[in-house]
Amino acid sequence: MSWEKIVRKVTPYVPGEQPKDKNIIKLNTNECPYPPAPGVRKLLDNIKYEDMRLYPDPEASVLVDALSDYYNVPKDQIFVGVGSDDVLSMAYLTFFNSDKPLLFPDITYSFYDVWAELYKVPYKKIPLNDDFKINFEDYYEENQPNGGVIIANPNAPVGISEPVSELEKLIQHNRNSVVIIDEAYIDFGGESALPLIEKYENVLVVQTFSKSRAMAGMRIGYAFGSKKLIKYMQDAKFSFNSYTMNRPSLELGVAAIEDDKYFKDTCAKIVATRERVKKELSGLGFTFPDSKANFIFAKHERVSGEELFLALKEKGIYVRHWSADRIADYLRITIGTDEEMDKLIAFLKEYLA
Amino acid sequence: MSWEKIVRKVTPYVPGEQPKDKNIIKLNTNECPYPPAPGVRKLLDNIKYEDMRLYPDPEASVLVDALSDYYNVPKDQIFVGVGSDDVLSMAYLTFFNSDKPLLFPDITYSFYDVWAELYKVPYKKIPLNDDFKINFEDYYEENQPNGGVIIANPNAPVGISEPVSELEKLIQHNRNSVVIIDEAYIDFGGESALPLIEKYENVLVVQTFSKSRAMAGMRIGYAFGSKKLIKYMQDAKFSFNSYTMNRPSLELGVAAIEDDKYFKDTCAKIVATRERVKKELSGLGFTFPDSKANFIFAKHERVSGEELFLALKEKGIYVRHWSADRIADYLRITIGTDEEMDKLIAFLKEYLA
Repeated sequence: MSWEKIVRKVTPYVPGEQPKDKNIIKLNTNECPYPPAPGVRKLLDNIKYEDMRLYPDPEASVLVDALSDYYNVPKDQIFVGVGSDDVLSMAYLTFFNSDKPLLFPDITYSFYDVWAELYKVPYKKIPLNDDFKINFEDYYEENQPNGGVIIANPNAPVGISEPVSELEKLIQHNRNSVVIIDEAYIDFGGESALPLIEKYENVLVVQTFSKSRAMAGMRIGYAFGSKKLIKYMQDAKFSFNSYTMNRPSLELGVAAIEDDKYFKDTCAKIVATRERVKKELSGLGFTFPDSKANFIFAKHERVSGEELFLALKEKGIYVRHWSADRIADYLRITIGTDEEMDKLIAFLKEYLA
Repeated sequence: MSWEKIVRKVTPYVPGEQPKDKNIIKLNTNECPYPPAPGVRKLLDNIKYEDMRLYPDPEASVLVDALSDYYNVPKDQIFVGVGSDDVLSMAYLTFFNSDKPLLFPDITYSFYDVWAELYKVPYKKIPLNDDFKINFEDYYEENQPNGGVIIANPNAPVGISEPVSELEKLIQHNRNSVVIIDEAYIDFGGESALPLIEKYENVLVVQTFSKSRAMAGMRIGYAFGSKKLIKYMQDAKFSFNSYTMNRPSLELGVAAIEDDKYFKDTCAKIVATRERVKKELSGLGFTFPDSKANFIFAKHERVSGEELFLALKEKGIYVRHWSADRIADYLRITIGTDEEMDKLIAFLKEYLA
């Protein structure tokens, strides 16, 4: 029927599998292996059931206030959404409306081109170098006029963290379009670009509760930017859905922020496990970029990525694998608990022997 | 700076006020005056805190299954989202990509033109007749080729419910674009168009948990349509954000559906209060269309809508008022508890005397 002719037809992003079997060692979607802060548990008992009949606060004030206090950023420079995917999606819709291309690395979060396709934003992928690092000069506007830039730092799925000084130079060369720094993995050893929002009004720094704050199941993301930038995003968001964050997400989000010691301890534990696993993987013949994220992007000297991915899956250990040319030999392995990683290493040892 | 030139600039929808003062009688956003089903309270105690570190099921299976059972609609004909606003917003993005105008009434849910502006969808408002009823023939495609139709039934803010036979005729005359029936208020006495999805593959029927199921604070909306229609929406949704519904919303949504007796009793109580309040308002000199929703759209014979709105607000009773020409003399009054409505009536009696 002809109604189909005007449908927006897209090929969606495919997230990592979410198996229902609890026995699976799940190292495939970069979740935190530890539970959220204990305050979250406590607050769950106190959620006011009677208030659920009422709409949530459309301004998400309690959560914005908590983020404002924690990061020392004024409230009108903070945007919150249903996970950082929602925040990034709204940023695309708001800022990338040029006929010039949006720029991002050829190897990065694979949602970046999906959003561009959804909103019909022209885009250009810039190859990472052979070490999977970003060639920053390729993004300088004098070389190729552009309609925006999005950089994940640390970059996914490679895990490399780039210095903020390089990001700042990129921004200085891109004052005519919005530059997004996606910091989903920043809390595991990277350097945040947050201070740059004070100097450059076209910079958006995006973070999430899904990784370091162990709240993927609650869908909470946030962004920092100039007052002007955030106001434009709010206008688009309030033209999309007045109430995106439900009551529990607002309240539990606050509880997660309040326990800073737990947050820092959790990140430190994951970093310690990551560094230990790096050594073990090296010993087994793997190579990998130096990850500052909660995952390792590793390639074995002999065995293909696909073979290892399937062997691990067979054993009930899920990691992530892509078939794209440059990365087909790699596995992205989320850092789990020490016990989970021991099982992974033990299996690999046996399999590779 | 020139980055602003390519920003999508929009004027957002303004939702009704969400006052923090608990003493206010809140009859301004059509929430349910009763709490959600008791099963929701019980389930809150059992939400697995440890699982919050994990992403929710992107397919929202438990909720889709529950809706499928309750409405007897196959799972692949159901779409769920963050309130019906999210569902409608995704439907606009997916289906309304024509250079012909989207059609909807001049007086209806005021988000319809906001979404059109956001996505740059051309649109045309068709006047309701003098009794605030829809002139269905104005929407027949032979009269004006169109890029889609959206009708709220019962229509907001007037409350009138149109017969499904009229909606079906409209659909028969509009096979070349998607027709959305927004049934946010259907459970208070209207006739659902749900059976039409079996006969017409271009029809989307949208409902919500925010009104009759007393879950506005949880943000749950859903839609029914042909398998083909729903697949297109899913593709767009999975290109926007893989995980829109968080863990509590999925679980608590199921609990709300399971208690059908509570649901029906709640709707019946609201309908009984509405019918009583109609009589009281008539006695005080108000006129109103015959509402089949959980609100009454009423105009007083002497006193202006704005004056009454402000007087009620001063007294701590919030209702909704718009300044648009045709409806400036009307108040939209949500049906609260009997006690709340008694306070409203008592105040109006005194004020109008």
